[in-house]
Amino acid sequence: MQHKIVVCFSTKFVKLVISLINATFVQQQRCSLWFEEEVERDLRWVYGISKILHIGASEFQTIELVQSGPFGKVLLLDGKLQSAELDEFVYHESIVHPALLYHSNPKSVFIMGGGEGSTAREALKHSGVKKVVMCDIDQEVVDFCRDHMTENAEAFSSPRLELVINDARAELESCNEKFDVIIGDLNDPMDGGPCFTLYTQSFYMNILKPKLNLGGILVTQAGPAGILSHREVYSSIYNTLRQTFKYVVPYAAHVPSFADTWGWVMASDQAFPMIKMEETNYRIQNRIQGELHFLDGQTLCAMLALNKHVWKTLAGETHIFTEDSGRFIHGHGRAFKNQK
Amino acid sequence: MQHKIVVCFSTKFVKLVISLINATFVQQQRCSLWFEEEVERDLRWVYGISKILHIGASEFQTIELVQSGPFGKVLLLDGKLQSAELDEFVYHESIVHPALLYHSNPKSVFIMGGGEGSTAREALKHSGVKKVVMCDIDQEVVDFCRDHMTENAEAFSSPRLELVINDARAELESCNEKFDVIIGDLNDPMDGGPCFTLYTQSFYMNILKPKLNLGGILVTQAGPAGILSHREVYSSIYNTLRQTFKYVVPYAAHVPSFADTWGWVMASDQAFPMIKMEETNYRIQNRIQGELHFLDGQTLCAMLALNKHVWKTLAGETHIFTEDSGRFIHGHGRAFKNQK
Amino acid sequence: MQHKIVVCFSTKFVKLVISLINATFVQQQRCSLWFEEEVERDLRWVYGISKILHIGASEFQTIELVQSGPFGKVLLLDGKLQSAELDEFVYHESIVHPALLYHSNPKSVFIMGGGEGSTAREALKHSGVKKVVMCDIDQEVVDFCRDHMTENAEAFSSPRLELVINDARAELESCNEKFDVIIGDLNDPMDGGPCFTLYTQSFYMNILKPKLNLGGILVTQAGPAGILSHREVYSSIYNTLRQTFKYVVPYAAHVPSFADTWGWVMASDQAFPMIKMEETNYRIQNRIQGELHFLDGQTLCAMLALNKHVWKTLAGETHIFTEDSGRFIHGHGRAFKNQK
Amino acid sequence: MQHKIVVCFSTKFVKLVISLINATFVQQQRCSLWFEEEVERDLRWVYGISKILHIGASEFQTIELVQSGPFGKVLLLDGKLQSAELDEFVYHESIVHPALLYHSNPKSVFIMGGGEGSTAREALKHSGVKKVVMCDIDQEVVDFCRDHMTENAEAFSSPRLELVINDARAELESCNEKFDVIIGDLNDPMDGGPCFTLYTQSFYMNILKPKLNLGGILVTQAGPAGILSHREVYSSIYNTLRQTFKYVVPYAAHVPSFADTWGWVMASDQAFPMIKMEETNYRIQNRIQGELHFLDGQTLCAMLALNKHVWKTLAGETHIFTEDSGRFIHGHGRAFKNQK
Repeated sequence: MQHKIVVCFSTKFVKLVISLINATFVQQQRCSLWFEEEVERDLRWVYGISKILHIGASEFQTIELVQSGPFGKVLLLDGKLQSAELDEFVYHESIVHPALLYHSNPKSVFIMGGGEGSTAREALKHSGVKKVVMCDIDQEVVDFCRDHMTENAEAFSSPRLELVINDARAELESCNEKFDVIIGDLNDPMDGGPCFTLYTQSFYMNILKPKLNLGGILVTQAGPAGILSHREVYSSIYNTLRQTFKYVVPYAAHVPSFADTWGWVMASDQAFPMIKMEETNYRIQNRIQGELHFLDGQTLCAMLALNKHVWKTLAGETHIFTEDSGRFIHGHGRAFKNQK
Repeated sequence: MQHKIVVCFSTKFVKLVISLINATFVQQQRCSLWFEEEVERDLRWVYGISKILHIGASEFQTIELVQSGPFGKVLLLDGKLQSAELDEFVYHESIVHPALLYHSNPKSVFIMGGGEGSTAREALKHSGVKKVVMCDIDQEVVDFCRDHMTENAEAFSSPRLELVINDARAELESCNEKFDVIIGDLNDPMDGGPCFTLYTQSFYMNILKPKLNLGGILVTQAGPAGILSHREVYSSIYNTLRQTFKYVVPYAAHVPSFADTWGWVMASDQAFPMIKMEETNYRIQNRIQGELHFLDGQTLCAMLALNKHVWKTLAGETHIFTEDSGRFIHGHGRAFKNQK
Repeated sequence: MQHKIVVCFSTKFVKLVISLINATFVQQQRCSLWFEEEVERDLRWVYGISKILHIGASEFQTIELVQSGPFGKVLLLDGKLQSAELDEFVYHESIVHPALLYHSNPKSVFIMGGGEGSTAREALKHSGVKKVVMCDIDQEVVDFCRDHMTENAEAFSSPRLELVINDARAELESCNEKFDVIIGDLNDPMDGGPCFTLYTQSFYMNILKPKLNLGGILVTQAGPAGILSHREVYSSIYNTLRQTFKYVVPYAAHVPSFADTWGWVMASDQAFPMIKMEETNYRIQNRIQGELHFLDGQTLCAMLALNKHVWKTLAGETHIFTEDSGRFIHGHGRAFKNQK
Repeated sequence: MQHKIVVCFSTKFVKLVISLINATFVQQQRCSLWFEEEVERDLRWVYGISKILHIGASEFQTIELVQSGPFGKVLLLDGKLQSAELDEFVYHESIVHPALLYHSNPKSVFIMGGGEGSTAREALKHSGVKKVVMCDIDQEVVDFCRDHMTENAEAFSSPRLELVINDARAELESCNEKFDVIIGDLNDPMDGGPCFTLYTQSFYMNILKPKLNLGGILVTQAGPAGILSHREVYSSIYNTLRQTFKYVVPYAAHVPSFADTWGWVMASDQAFPMIKMEETNYRIQNRIQGELHFLDGQTLCAMLALNKHVWKTLAGETHIFTEDSGRFIHGHGRAFKNQK
């Protein structure tokens, strides 16, 4: 004989049981592979990897595309995070659009680095841009990203994209063209790293500036810009550009997968116009095909504002990047992006 | 016989050797104790603890003050980070000053929670504020912080501070006073946590609002507000207040030790005035004794701007916190701050 | 003009500088990918992965071969460590040779599981063994290991090896042969895991024992057997076999990559002979082609001895694995080895 | 009206629900503080700390007693694990009893280091031992352990214990006594660490040996002795003693909290007698008051056997510890035990 029990359940109890079952199930699937970013010597940003999707290698570095728990698909170069599916739009909209929106009529763009294709993708959203040169040193990375990062497939096949496999410095030195906007989508300056010289005053002055058209704008990623990290390289890159260009505009935004607020700097020898939020939104609407997800007039205003603490450091910074005097970061997100 | 070798050193080489020696030495002192915040199920924020400074306990929780590597002294309640020496000014300036600066003439402030004393410290910087009531449930935490957190010593001994050990809800219900500004320096809403009900519409409507003077402002911490985390509770707290007060102003700032952008919301039944940057700076100068390190007019402008992605979520949010319908965060920074 | 400095170096100083340089260089190459084994809920065994070598997948599980820092190449199934290049000889010599050496003249061996090939490799070292049946459920794992684990290539191509892709239980039930030695190279009993029933008394009694020749020996891996872990399943598997076979011999050895001492149990209905160290060494010399690296007469003596603490638990154990009453481990090394 | 639902539960389902509830509850209490032992550069042994019990400091080091998840109470010196409640009996029975049991009639024992008191506790279990000198350099550690480690309280108050606060080398040099057994319960040899010279041939020859009575035995802890770690220092300490004493006996056992098999070496100028298991058990029964939990005749046999792989290394080792030629371990369990 089987027992029958009469029970009264509250809906609340049933929900509780279900949530417990879910919680336990999820718990059992916990990760074994973890990606660990050593942000500083005793600060780690650690996230679970649920699947290795693709692996590759070039003469310069290893290449991996992995499925992470918190950030979606993540591209790793030499085991370092390059960009994450769920928030790469923050970094890439930020590095591309402010300069292109401030420029009165940008037609040509040169990207130093940027092999994964996302920076080019954003630049190509500007219908007025006729030509984007993307100059990355690593053919294999470019091929890998073209094959596996579907979100950039359209950009890679655009007739307006000119892909060059070369060292950015060498390419700029030898090319005969000038550009409206040059974008430094580079590795952070690392001690002994390949990108250090692309942040020096002599590079900006002698190699890069001659390749900007009249009214041209340089924008470069400039490392971590958080309350506790902006003194590492950000203030120095800012000051180096301030000593090299007439007009310099720093800005920043928090990028979750980088575990920090990130910084960029625009520089030009022509004054940046005062653009109101409404004008920014108007330009976005008129120039850009496709939707932006992070940036609009109000957001740009916030990015440019920074905060009192960081401004104070920027204002007082005296260090200039030269070949003999660099500053280096410990090991942040964009750390080993390979580009000489 | 001893060999003598003649060697030419470049200064560069000598510097290299010294930096190597330093690097190696520092390496040998690596941490053994680590604090691990499980930001999400597979995302960890981990930092080294070099020294346990003080330990204590109350009937509610354990209390520890530790020396961390990246964030200076860190206060832990029940093993959860409460605030960190090196960036607590971002959180505490942000939770206090916007509301007090927007108010035309704030004289009385009620703080729900805030036992560590930093929120009171900031409020007391306003020379026009005649009375700050700080209502925390845990006598031991308050005593511990008064004894060990020297940066708040002056605040704790201010004659303008009235310290109440009580549950914030009970205290508000029973007190006969009204206040110009009420600050919710509370634990995040956690499933089963003590603070959940202090974020509900009925609490705001029935308990809190009656204790605001005419023109009074409520400001509450509102959980993580980053690109990837603002849907957890921030948008919901915003919408709950929007359905309860006539005017609501959300804002946010990146707090490094919390590993995220953090959110706050101001709410009032009287319109917030349009204040220009210059006016903000003027009010800071005239009302506040002592210097602010994070906030000025421009910074406040940036905090209020948020970004397109977060605004879109806020605009579309329909969830309201009620006793039967909560939303909860996984385990962020302010997680277990004890306050019923 | 260049300065010249005359310096006297001690050899000691030069060595110091070189070791510092090495230390620093090595330091800069630190790992970003880490494998984390949750040995218990709050105990983790974590090691660096320097390279993903090969990735694959079957209908049952994901398959990865990675280069680890401390353990050489490591095979992962469903993200769990299966075996590590640098110490797999300890596990595989231990699971195979004691039973084959105690048996008077073993000619046929049946391996439940063992898809990576190492258990077969060890069994095939016995020149008297004419046939080794390896029965693994996962064709893809077998193919992956045959392709990538060169140390087992010879074994995989041996004419004495008969490879069957099937569930071990089903295969034993349906096959008409009997064997001198049956080896359980199985997953640990996990709650909900595929292998649990292959440790039950009814399986041993009804399915397995009928397939042993007269004098035949069963040996099974039996989970962690350390001072703190042997109560999880080891004592229980031991007792289950003790209640099923007339003679039972437990033994154990520390396997570094498993972060614990590991246990095995031999069982037979015929008494195990008293074999002196010298006799063991003699049998090794006469029966085994190729060298053993871990096992000799003295080592076997040590493995069989266990220690007082563990023996006390084994002696007093009363639990028996049945379909309704299992015990499970938290998540050790051999956790998810796929074999039904 | 309230709904009533008639449901049939199987006991199995109810058990499942309860286990899920437990699992989830336990999950919510997960640790925030973790102790991380860097066993090698890319191998970490990490365990949760649920509570800081006591903190202290001396002129030499910090002292902490913490409640760990997997190992019970753990004593940390300078943030390094010294001994763990749940398995310290393995280490301390192993370092003390073999030498005292092999000795025909030990009456006096000198302990180099051993400030926590556990080594003395084990030695005092021998009723024939009339005097135990424990010589530790750190008064504060001794006081801390006497106050907080209740398991050693009886030993600390024994009239047979003579406690000396001094450097072990200096104490041995200056004392006029000789001893039957000298125990080296010392820090591992670390580069730059305080204990290195207490492992050198000249120390053994010139300082220590003259203080041994006729038939006296030295036993020293000798670092990790696992399959992958025994070449770090164990084989070297063994060989150094082999070149200094006529008879040398290495042995080892797995200590879970040390994440490795641990090694000890006995040395004497008088031959170690062949003692059968039964004789060992007889001596334990006759000489020792109180029960041993790890060691008996059979266990001792297993410890002495080691394995083929380690024996091969020991046999071929040629390195000798001298003041100019040390070997060092990376950072294992007994790493910073303070004793000069």
